[in-house]
Amino acid sequence: MKMGTVVRTIPRCPTELLKELATAGVATTHEAMGKIGLMQPYMRPIYQGGRIAGNAVTALVHPGDNWMLHVAVEQCRPGDVLVVAVSAENHDGMFGDLLATSLKAHGVAGLVIDAGVRDVEDLRQMQFPVWSRCVSAKGTIKATLGMVNTPVVCAGASVRGGDIVVADDDGVVVVPFRAVDATLAACRQRLAKEATKRQRLANGELGLDIEVMRPTLAQLGMRYYDTLEEAESS
Amino acid sequence: MKMGTVVRTIPRCPTELLKELATAGVATTHEAMGKIGLMQPYMRPIYQGGRIAGNAVTALVHPGDNWMLHVAVEQCRPGDVLVVAVSAENHDGMFGDLLATSLKAHGVAGLVIDAGVRDVEDLRQMQFPVWSRCVSAKGTIKATLGMVNTPVVCAGASVRGGDIVVADDDGVVVVPFRAVDATLAACRQRLAKEATKRQRLANGELGLDIEVMRPTLAQLGMRYYDTLEEAESS
Amino acid sequence: MKMGTVVRTIPRCPTELLKELATAGVATTHEAMGKIGLMQPYMRPIYQGGRIAGNAVTALVHPGDNWMLHVAVEQCRPGDVLVVAVSAENHDGMFGDLLATSLKAHGVAGLVIDAGVRDVEDLRQMQFPVWSRCVSAKGTIKATLGMVNTPVVCAGASVRGGDIVVADDDGVVVVPFRAVDATLAACRQRLAKEATKRQRLANGELGLDIEVMRPTLAQLGMRYYDTLEEAESS
Amino acid sequence: MKMGTVVRTIPRCPTELLKELATAGVATTHEAMGKIGLMQPYMRPIYQGGRIAGNAVTALVHPGDNWMLHVAVEQCRPGDVLVVAVSAENHDGMFGDLLATSLKAHGVAGLVIDAGVRDVEDLRQMQFPVWSRCVSAKGTIKATLGMVNTPVVCAGASVRGGDIVVADDDGVVVVPFRAVDATLAACRQRLAKEATKRQRLANGELGLDIEVMRPTLAQLGMRYYDTLEEAESS
Amino acid sequence: MKMGTVVRTIPRCPTELLKELATAGVATTHEAMGKIGLMQPYMRPIYQGGRIAGNAVTALVHPGDNWMLHVAVEQCRPGDVLVVAVSAENHDGMFGDLLATSLKAHGVAGLVIDAGVRDVEDLRQMQFPVWSRCVSAKGTIKATLGMVNTPVVCAGASVRGGDIVVADDDGVVVVPFRAVDATLAACRQRLAKEATKRQRLANGELGLDIEVMRPTLAQLGMRYYDTLEEAESS
Amino acid sequence: MKMGTVVRTIPRCPTELLKELATAGVATTHEAMGKIGLMQPYMRPIYQGGRIAGNAVTALVHPGDNWMLHVAVEQCRPGDVLVVAVSAENHDGMFGDLLATSLKAHGVAGLVIDAGVRDVEDLRQMQFPVWSRCVSAKGTIKATLGMVNTPVVCAGASVRGGDIVVADDDGVVVVPFRAVDATLAACRQRLAKEATKRQRLANGELGLDIEVMRPTLAQLGMRYYDTLEEAESS
Repeated sequence: MKMGTVVRTIPRCPTELLKELATAGVATTHEAMGKIGLMQPYMRPIYQGGRIAGNAVTALVHPGDNWMLHVAVEQCRPGDVLVVAVSAENHDGMFGDLLATSLKAHGVAGLVIDAGVRDVEDLRQMQFPVWSRCVSAKGTIKATLGMVNTPVVCAGASVRGGDIVVADDDGVVVVPFRAVDATLAACRQRLAKEATKRQRLANGELGLDIEVMRPTLAQLGMRYYDTLEEAESS
Repeated sequence: MKMGTVVRTIPRCPTELLKELATAGVATTHEAMGKIGLMQPYMRPIYQGGRIAGNAVTALVHPGDNWMLHVAVEQCRPGDVLVVAVSAENHDGMFGDLLATSLKAHGVAGLVIDAGVRDVEDLRQMQFPVWSRCVSAKGTIKATLGMVNTPVVCAGASVRGGDIVVADDDGVVVVPFRAVDATLAACRQRLAKEATKRQRLANGELGLDIEVMRPTLAQLGMRYYDTLEEAESS
Repeated sequence: MKMGTVVRTIPRCPTELLKELATAGVATTHEAMGKIGLMQPYMRPIYQGGRIAGNAVTALVHPGDNWMLHVAVEQCRPGDVLVVAVSAENHDGMFGDLLATSLKAHGVAGLVIDAGVRDVEDLRQMQFPVWSRCVSAKGTIKATLGMVNTPVVCAGASVRGGDIVVADDDGVVVVPFRAVDATLAACRQRLAKEATKRQRLANGELGLDIEVMRPTLAQLGMRYYDTLEEAESS
Repeated sequence: MKMGTVVRTIPRCPTELLKELATAGVATTHEAMGKIGLMQPYMRPIYQGGRIAGNAVTALVHPGDNWMLHVAVEQCRPGDVLVVAVSAENHDGMFGDLLATSLKAHGVAGLVIDAGVRDVEDLRQMQFPVWSRCVSAKGTIKATLGMVNTPVVCAGASVRGGDIVVADDDGVVVVPFRAVDATLAACRQRLAKEATKRQRLANGELGLDIEVMRPTLAQLGMRYYDTLEEAESS
Repeated sequence: MKMGTVVRTIPRCPTELLKELATAGVATTHEAMGKIGLMQPYMRPIYQGGRIAGNAVTALVHPGDNWMLHVAVEQCRPGDVLVVAVSAENHDGMFGDLLATSLKAHGVAGLVIDAGVRDVEDLRQMQFPVWSRCVSAKGTIKATLGMVNTPVVCAGASVRGGDIVVADDDGVVVVPFRAVDATLAACRQRLAKEATKRQRLANGELGLDIEVMRPTLAQLGMRYYDTLEEAESS
Repeated sequence: MKMGTVVRTIPRCPTELLKELATAGVATTHEAMGKIGLMQPYMRPIYQGGRIAGNAVTALVHPGDNWMLHVAVEQCRPGDVLVVAVSAENHDGMFGDLLATSLKAHGVAGLVIDAGVRDVEDLRQMQFPVWSRCVSAKGTIKATLGMVNTPVVCAGASVRGGDIVVADDDGVVVVPFRAVDATLAACRQRLAKEATKRQRLANGELGLDIEVMRPTLAQLGMRYYDTLEEAESS
């Protein structure tokens, strides 16, 4: 595909499904997928407590050039998450309060961007959630074509238009569109299992016993000593 | 100039001008200057919501040695911003609650330091705003001469004594003393223009239309497809 | 010592002593030790305002494998701090709300981990303080033996079981068990000295005068100029 | 797809085509694709002068666990390039002289790995070219299933089994399998154009004139001054 | 122990033993120790092909201050390796051709330093091997006491005076003095085992078969598909 | 000054003076200036053994945009060094074999660039020395005005047109134009002093004795112990 390609249609999920994934959160969703799909941990929220899940509208931009974000806004529908990838590492402030005002006016749930953002005090006050590589006031230009809603790599994760992006204080995870049902089912299973375990742990039981780890550990050679000196001389 | 040089006189700006720049903020000021003058984005505030503008008193120190900060305090006047550069990358905790108490007693607006700071809980409680490379408790020594109010490079930005330093949650920008009037004028223009645009964006208009981007994009080869499959096979 | 070694007994300190060190804080304790013992400044709290001191229960784990944390929990007593070292740089999310529930149930004061943590919103709500290399949702496995309560290097600091770990918003410092009395004594001295100095600085006195720095500075060649031009031409 | 998935068949290109791309090199191929497809620049060769192009056999592994590399070797054919992605950032030494001996025995052209490698002196002597994130002797385990020949993200680039990987001293670029003909055609065009330009530049002509940049620059506001002083006062 | 402590006596190993460890190299020694003891992979040789093993003379220095290196030289004996730790992260050029001349005159085998070095062209010509955090010309001062031959943490590894340091192109590993015999024995075993395996791999046998991995992989759920499409739809 | 400013005239030094500084090298020149003027140590040569000194022609560019390099070439004279600064951190491959051909045709001594370069194998074969932040094949655009021969900050060092740039395997140092005579005189002094010292060190004398450090060390509290046990119990 050529630079300048914009795709208008992406698949979208029912709102209740997105809500349930947002509540499950990033860590649970990531485990439910088989421990894959995470963006790099340098992707941090600009304020604490944001929690979203939405279908991705993707944008691919050139370093230092945020032109395609304006093109991408038009493709966003209420509840979507705008995901911005850059064709090389970049820390410039590609997004600020004006673009946030525009996205908010179109009902967009939040922004995930592998570059910098600015006007973060305003964004906090607007309560527009953003996960970014960094905060930077560095201004960008509008000179180069990129792509919208084509497959991109954002912060180490593969994202296609319509994939479900879940983000909270733990980071960002991407669920391929057609894996969303299986992932949600696995999330529910995991949450149910954890609820029981959490209660037992709160009562003082040990993971060693709940998960019956002792026999395997012993078999692999785990050995207890009363003191460090004893261990060192054995 | 030799190590040990201390300059007593720097130019200073009227208070109202500084207030206006602080309100304009880092992103706007940086754009008004032509997208230059920013410190590196690793310069982060130790607490959210600080916002200052003041004339720079500069200090150049050796890695691991904060002696010259004490010399610099004496050169500060109410409203000034102390800017500390190090002659090589350093992360030590050069500044803490004692030096903050001293600066506060002399009316200094805040600190910008390309090294570490400590006692950050105290600094927050004192509401003394600091932008630093990192937080570190590592103690420093007092053994080496540096310079005060000579030109320095701090976090990638050139700073001369008296230059105006603007800092907020977006980072830090430096305005050369003699560029301050032109910069302020450009800030006002930009702020006025943005107010209108913000309103239109909030009403749902697109940047694509407000800025009349569509014709140029089309001319450069932007092309819309209904689906990804269509785009891939074209 | 072989992988799989677990030591059951570590020395522990009286609670009052630990409280006093926690109050003194990281910067003061580090200075009292002769400016050593700090962990790397990348070790940051997951929320502001945590402040702990406790005897270290150490765990050494393999990258991507958090199995030994479950073994370590059993060795923790109320007031202890769990210190997790990894045998190579790792950013995975080795610790979350389940392990925190378990540690809290056993009265553990907090966690210090040279890797990632997840479920940070939950941890904040539980008010379970954690200092970590990063936040990451990346899941880990349970396949490899490590060690518990043997000497480790965590974030650049040497830690033995029972050593005192002090952590606050400035970072983490480690006091060797047998150095704790001397360190506490030095902390008290330093705090007393600083109280006086803080008052004088608040009154506007200069460090230059309080510490009588001017003669040494002059002797080393410090020289004052009225203007930058004068300094440049001298 | 589940962890443990191994795909046996990938598309492969004619040898001459791969040779031509290797000769064109990374920079030219990347430009021919529209300035996309590069891996992060932290991917460096372990010795200078390596230059390969081959179809990718992909492996996805867990941090600290190189088990799937053994599974991947069996899927490699002469001329292939083994591409190893990790499900989170990892620096361990996942590959050394034994695996290199095995790959070499099967005619594999080289290795691209988003983790560490070791035995680099041996690898140099064997002249087995490797592009890696770092050099590290840290040993790994064999405990976790990954995937082979499923789509992965390696060092920021999307790679599918059979995609063409080109690597030289400039880094690594990935050409999607079905884009290879168009890319090769664009490479040839670019190389022809550059040959002429190189000769003119060697003769002392300026890019400003060859590319007729002066009018556009002037129109955008480029302005020449005889001295810095003149520029500053204008 | 106080700053200023210098220990005169360290244990030393027979020369043949050191030679054998140097030949075994870093990766093998690290595996023989149970996958521990490595310095961080940022420790790189300043030129390729250096390979040493020697007893460590340790020095602990302050950031930006190389004074204790001169104190440490006097404690070095022929064959020793000087290991320099800094009490906080530092990149200054603490070591150059003069100190190298001095160390060489005393028969020192090489330098391992968690900071910068300079005069690297001279060091290459002298063939004095150095492993360092970086190359930097930044000069240091001589103002602060450190320690010599007390336990230090260098680049993430614990080192005591007399511990054996092995360094080659793969990095640096530290063997505790009293673990040296067991480590050497394990190295020999590993080398013997690898020689056989290398030959079989060179003949085209697969690690999957030599190590009999297939049954375990199958049991854990590994599954082969002929094509990606088949895998995706299963 | 506005973006688009190009200054035609810079001061230049006699060739012999530049040769003498190149021979003195980066470390010596940096010390002669009072331990200042170094670029960050991330600036590394693309091949070993380059050694240059020349007057700086400066270029300031936007991230991802190398247009101004073409403008800068025209301002270069034989023996000059082209110094490229970027208005924010950038790793793109702004320079390759075509621009190197052009610079070489005009007798330029080398390039110093705070961004990436590509075609490094060609540059090595051309023996055109380059010091850069990284190697990257990432292509750039030609859309934005920058400045030529105005003051810039490159890799943390302040550079004005005509300043003398010295670069070798240790990195890059910048000598302000009007400080060049004093710096050269200080270099000569230092080199003479070091020659004597080097001879004495080669003969086995200790820096401790040559520099008479023992009395000061003793006075500050240095204390020798025969064994570590003795030191620990004192």
